[in-house]
Amino acid sequence: MRANYKKFVGLILVSGLLLGLFYAWSPGTSSGVDIRPRQEGLIKELIEGKIRDPFSGNRDIAYHIKDDVACHLARNTCVCLGDEGAFQLPFSNLLFPRVWAHNIDLAFLESHPDPEGLKRHRAEEYSNFQKRTYNPADVPFVAEANSPLQYPTQGVEVRPLKTIIIPGLGLKEETRSNHMVYLTASLGTFDVAATVDGVSVKGGGEKHMILSSPLLSTLNKQLQFVTYTNTVFHPKTADTVQFATEGHKSFFSIKVGHGTIPKLYNSGYQREYNISALVTIATKTFLRYDKLKDLIDSIRQYYPTVTIVIADDNEHPQPVPGPNIDHYIMPFGKGWFAGRNLAVSQVTTKYVLWVDDDFIFTANTKLERMVDILEKTTLDLVGGAVREVTGYTATYRHTISVEEGGEEGNCLHIRNGYYHVIEGFPNCVVADAVINFFMGRTDKVQEVGFNPRLARHGHLEFFIDALGSLHIGSCSDVIVNHASKIKLPWSKTDSQKAYDKFRYSSSTADNDIHKEVFYFKNRFKCMTSH
Amino acid sequence: MRANYKKFVGLILVSGLLLGLFYAWSPGTSSGVDIRPRQEGLIKELIEGKIRDPFSGNRDIAYHIKDDVACHLARNTCVCLGDEGAFQLPFSNLLFPRVWAHNIDLAFLESHPDPEGLKRHRAEEYSNFQKRTYNPADVPFVAEANSPLQYPTQGVEVRPLKTIIIPGLGLKEETRSNHMVYLTASLGTFDVAATVDGVSVKGGGEKHMILSSPLLSTLNKQLQFVTYTNTVFHPKTADTVQFATEGHKSFFSIKVGHGTIPKLYNSGYQREYNISALVTIATKTFLRYDKLKDLIDSIRQYYPTVTIVIADDNEHPQPVPGPNIDHYIMPFGKGWFAGRNLAVSQVTTKYVLWVDDDFIFTANTKLERMVDILEKTTLDLVGGAVREVTGYTATYRHTISVEEGGEEGNCLHIRNGYYHVIEGFPNCVVADAVINFFMGRTDKVQEVGFNPRLARHGHLEFFIDALGSLHIGSCSDVIVNHASKIKLPWSKTDSQKAYDKFRYSSSTADNDIHKEVFYFKNRFKCMTSH
Repeated sequence: MRANYKKFVGLILVSGLLLGLFYAWSPGTSSGVDIRPRQEGLIKELIEGKIRDPFSGNRDIAYHIKDDVACHLARNTCVCLGDEGAFQLPFSNLLFPRVWAHNIDLAFLESHPDPEGLKRHRAEEYSNFQKRTYNPADVPFVAEANSPLQYPTQGVEVRPLKTIIIPGLGLKEETRSNHMVYLTASLGTFDVAATVDGVSVKGGGEKHMILSSPLLSTLNKQLQFVTYTNTVFHPKTADTVQFATEGHKSFFSIKVGHGTIPKLYNSGYQREYNISALVTIATKTFLRYDKLKDLIDSIRQYYPTVTIVIADDNEHPQPVPGPNIDHYIMPFGKGWFAGRNLAVSQVTTKYVLWVDDDFIFTANTKLERMVDILEKTTLDLVGGAVREVTGYTATYRHTISVEEGGEEGNCLHIRNGYYHVIEGFPNCVVADAVINFFMGRTDKVQEVGFNPRLARHGHLEFFIDALGSLHIGSCSDVIVNHASKIKLPWSKTDSQKAYDKFRYSSSTADNDIHKEVFYFKNRFKCMTSH
Repeated sequence: MRANYKKFVGLILVSGLLLGLFYAWSPGTSSGVDIRPRQEGLIKELIEGKIRDPFSGNRDIAYHIKDDVACHLARNTCVCLGDEGAFQLPFSNLLFPRVWAHNIDLAFLESHPDPEGLKRHRAEEYSNFQKRTYNPADVPFVAEANSPLQYPTQGVEVRPLKTIIIPGLGLKEETRSNHMVYLTASLGTFDVAATVDGVSVKGGGEKHMILSSPLLSTLNKQLQFVTYTNTVFHPKTADTVQFATEGHKSFFSIKVGHGTIPKLYNSGYQREYNISALVTIATKTFLRYDKLKDLIDSIRQYYPTVTIVIADDNEHPQPVPGPNIDHYIMPFGKGWFAGRNLAVSQVTTKYVLWVDDDFIFTANTKLERMVDILEKTTLDLVGGAVREVTGYTATYRHTISVEEGGEEGNCLHIRNGYYHVIEGFPNCVVADAVINFFMGRTDKVQEVGFNPRLARHGHLEFFIDALGSLHIGSCSDVIVNHASKIKLPWSKTDSQKAYDKFRYSSSTADNDIHKEVFYFKNRFKCMTSH
């Protein structure tokens, strides 16, 4: 009996232990975390009246507006205006290209059966987008003057659920009987990596910690050991930490997140650029197999082994024979940007070169130059020049700017031109958009992508999607030829006529897609351009 | 003669005027800007000795290390260790799954003909990556205690070449004969939007501006009108501004860049979720047209009009008939992730649902539930559950963490499990990786992408690439069936055998690609997992 009893108790104990261990081990917290996007109200106390609109408020102190500066201040109410067309000199459009304004919202909404519903839908989608992308590290903070607190204002990061020492904390005040500081966070807890004699630590391991000591020097030594541990998982956010003492508060952000995993390409390390190892050529073809063949033949003269990826949405696809050619068949007529997105999605080399299927490589099409500038600068993409049969060579450089517009949407401004020449590369400049002959870092171009809804035509939409992501350049000394487009109407081949019919007929539905992309997807109300 | 002379002079004048106007109008600065990545040295003065390693330095003040906290501090030298396997209880592997450590660097380098050259190449690529992604807004700054300067510490942004008022600038000091502040920047200039009587402004319109006044109140009013204009274009960077007075310096960042252009999807706004308008189903198929047909038939029972995108790299592709099916033909054997990247690149709806070609939809495959959580939370992707014919249902939830490892690379830790339950969705949790049945925001999934080099197999690589980009969830109540995999060897069909041969034979070359992706592309030296 005794043996049985012992066995029984032993079994209970072991079961209890195993059960306890099992629950302790269960990965994951069972208490729920709310990840529905929160309405972030203005964190007024953070600014505590330090940020005022200087143009309002009391006029005790007189000031005089400087128009040449004040007129450049951004307002959240961009106005959709082009040029009035007052300048009537001959060739004025060459010297001073007229700016046209397009009211995208009016154009799109007036043909829509339910404009009010659509506006509400867009506002709701945008609101959700803002909530998803809200980052507490972007909230305006102001450092208080004459505060005894010393603290980090940027550069503090922690990976999810990990622990760091918070650098730079300190208190500098006159001697008093007791020195005390408070730390508060919401996505993590505080503790100390070491304890200092004579310092009281309350709330170690919690979201609110108080350190106090009669000696300032010991408190400051203790502050060097303060740790922060992220406890609420998020792949990319920030925790707002309050660091305070009597009468003074300060706020700073600790970035919480996984950090960026690099995407490095192993492309060999010879002295000279091995174009086949570094570059893949991508193109889309439709109804122009003859031109495609000319393109491929011309590429092979200079780059016999480079891989060429072809996206093909012909109704009756033909084979495209040859080594190092990857030919993809799409459903008929899927379209231009769908094909571009497809081709680029298949590239495994460090760089991708976009070409149209009616380009011709020549001795001036030196891809090594494009690789060189991408290897040596921070550019993500560099355009070249396309030479027409007339000799006219285009780089299609444009700058793009976006102006805040409030609830109705933003204003998009597109202008011919570039920002500046690139030092060390005198034929190259920086811009926001370039011609359709460019080489880019594959991972960055894939990240931006080509909107597959744009079927018949599109160009600047890619560069608009790229704003803020790609650093873009343009070199006028890397030139590709454009197969002749000068065809007299009666001398066009049947396939030429079929192509033109498809390509250049702009149906209403097709134009509607473009308006919808500008109005809804990118949330513009106005576009101005030359 | 006189008339001719007048005409001549007039012509010269007009030409000169036109030429002058032309050069003035030429868009873009001709003086070069250096965009070769700079070596950013430690900005020591910014920290001015405020950040010290607390564990070194003088030991005048005694401290005692708290091991339970100090052991969690991140060190830049992760060690590649698994479990020792000491626990030998029965079922110990169920309760305490053993952690295995894989030395990725050793595994990859030992089979490489030139390990030293490869290491150098990776270090160089990584260094360039760091220079390209360097952002001055991430440099550690510390706010000085007892400084009379008031200034913004975060949240100040300006679009390229635009002007803003810098909020929150102030000086609070005791009265003296003259109050003076200095502002310095490198990518822009300062000015004032209004002038205040009694304040001297020197350097308005330049990178270094000095404001001074005998009256503190007027200087502070003037400080409310200080503007910053970005003059050196960059699509995404930050300018470091120094704001100083006698004896005190402060630093803060102004973010310079285009800002994020939203990608909003117009998918209608009915009360109920219109799955066909919101979701596209994407899959890849190879040697399993019979299973693919079963999948499509099962989808059509519940979602008769949803678009299905199929990437197909069979050697002898067969048609896949049916409405709302987009069938893409790839070069033979291009592979798994190439196919996934292709399929996803073609999606035009707000959400994309990934399925394997041997899944079967049932009444439990409620896509509305996945849409619901994506619509209502900040999740970017949500996985479901896959039910085997045995009844075993898997969600494959994993957490992933990356630990800094110094020059040899980082350590990747993959564990079964999840982070926390999602409030409001009791069957759903947050994790870093899920099973291969998931719905995601199309723009975010396209942004991460599937590495087209991974031909025969791959799964976690997508989630590793997604770290820091995607907020990922997993719901156990959206279930898809897995067509039976239990096949006795002698009862397999020919196509089954062909598939298995292709899919499950891991060639050395194939494994080498995976090692290369972990070692080179993502820069890991070690991976630990269950």
